[in-house]
Amino acid sequence: MIVHETELRVQYYETDQMGVVHHSNYIRYFEVGRTELIRRLGMSYRELEDSGTVMPITNVEVRYFYPARYDEMIRIKIVVKEMPKVRMVFHYEIYNETGKLLADGSTTLAFLNKETGRPQRTPEVMVRLLSGYFDV
Amino acid sequence: MIVHETELRVQYYETDQMGVVHHSNYIRYFEVGRTELIRRLGMSYRELEDSGTVMPITNVEVRYFYPARYDEMIRIKIVVKEMPKVRMVFHYEIYNETGKLLADGSTTLAFLNKETGRPQRTPEVMVRLLSGYFDV
Amino acid sequence: MIVHETELRVQYYETDQMGVVHHSNYIRYFEVGRTELIRRLGMSYRELEDSGTVMPITNVEVRYFYPARYDEMIRIKIVVKEMPKVRMVFHYEIYNETGKLLADGSTTLAFLNKETGRPQRTPEVMVRLLSGYFDV
Amino acid sequence: MIVHETELRVQYYETDQMGVVHHSNYIRYFEVGRTELIRRLGMSYRELEDSGTVMPITNVEVRYFYPARYDEMIRIKIVVKEMPKVRMVFHYEIYNETGKLLADGSTTLAFLNKETGRPQRTPEVMVRLLSGYFDV
Repeated sequence: MIVHETELRVQYYETDQMGVVHHSNYIRYFEVGRTELIRRLGMSYRELEDSGTVMPITNVEVRYFYPARYDEMIRIKIVVKEMPKVRMVFHYEIYNETGKLLADGSTTLAFLNKETGRPQRTPEVMVRLLSGYFDV
Repeated sequence: MIVHETELRVQYYETDQMGVVHHSNYIRYFEVGRTELIRRLGMSYRELEDSGTVMPITNVEVRYFYPARYDEMIRIKIVVKEMPKVRMVFHYEIYNETGKLLADGSTTLAFLNKETGRPQRTPEVMVRLLSGYFDV
Repeated sequence: MIVHETELRVQYYETDQMGVVHHSNYIRYFEVGRTELIRRLGMSYRELEDSGTVMPITNVEVRYFYPARYDEMIRIKIVVKEMPKVRMVFHYEIYNETGKLLADGSTTLAFLNKETGRPQRTPEVMVRLLSGYFDV
Repeated sequence: MIVHETELRVQYYETDQMGVVHHSNYIRYFEVGRTELIRRLGMSYRELEDSGTVMPITNVEVRYFYPARYDEMIRIKIVVKEMPKVRMVFHYEIYNETGKLLADGSTTLAFLNKETGRPQRTPEVMVRLLSGYFDV
């Protein structure tokens, strides 16, 4: 199992006239956290793309409990529970500074060959980086 | 049951370096369609907010099948299946110009009193506008 | 001289907690209008990119007079005053429904070869499309 | 004179299909840097808004020299050259990791009373925070 946390500050341009963060931005916060998790594994997502694999999203779910507000430092906790085969599932929880759970959710990502656009299995380099985290 | 369709053109700033629309923007497309659906009911969402009710999102789900591409006219089909009590559920399908289903999903919205931030039942004005669409 | 107008509706996700459209979105409105102007010339920007030319922005200026608000239909008026040689300059004015000037500005775009990334002169196809609008 | 620098990482959702950061996002990078500069003065922009003053943008200029790319750490350098009276001018330079100047620009912000929406002079609290940086 992989557990990772990233902090980021809510920006003004992410708020809407309800006075809180627009709900679409949580999907972007998920992406920020996911990028940092992948980097910590030992290979940035940029390097993965450069090596010929892209990871498009195939599924997103978000549940919103409390709104995030401008200038808050929020914490994005991500858990990967299973070794990916052809898809990789990330579970997210977003907390504010006081530790309140603002939202949770999940995303599923596929592995595609960048040139052909066809689905592939988890790239070998990724399998190696991930193998330490899971009982195989 | 309410069924409504809106068309919109994919903008350049909605694409990402994968060469397709970034997945977070589908949530925004849902919002564009939902706004037009509510307007067609006979009261814009702006008027609803001005009358003291806001409708924050409590749940989002999206499944992505094929990517939307720059400059395509996409079609957002929305179905509301049930008369809302304290929450209103919208079901979405996004199609491209050739009729291919690109994504589907749903959002759940609550009704909140704008001043107190507290949940409330569907406002009376909304109930009247909706009542013709549902067997009660 | 080319003069073109596009209308679009302000979206909720474009507002911020000041209760008005976030200033960065005017740059995106400019792009929406510019895309429609180019399409009216007889060739979409998508086709231009497909033919091997990209037009990155080299300069943006915006002056903000009054805020655009959620759900307003705004009008983007664009004027191109000169036949482009290596750069193309667009002048913008954004009006609300009542005809009030909300913002004006300009953008300068270069022509680049998509493969090499090197500057080039206005593509021949574009020169032909533009030539009717300017005394050469 | 105030000089301040902020670093941030370019996100995937900020790129477009040209393979680089969409030009509208530099305006948002300016905002991120400006927020951190104001915080360093001793009062966050959030506190300023809470105290009754908002600072809308009245003017933006950006010149784009080289594109920012996904996953780069960019550096936003901001200079404030003059003590603000009724407007505050920020000058920006954005550098990539190798020290290359990607873009520069400026924004002018007004001080408005949050309730009335009317222009006001620089709030007293801000004058005190700024006074050490300028020969008056």
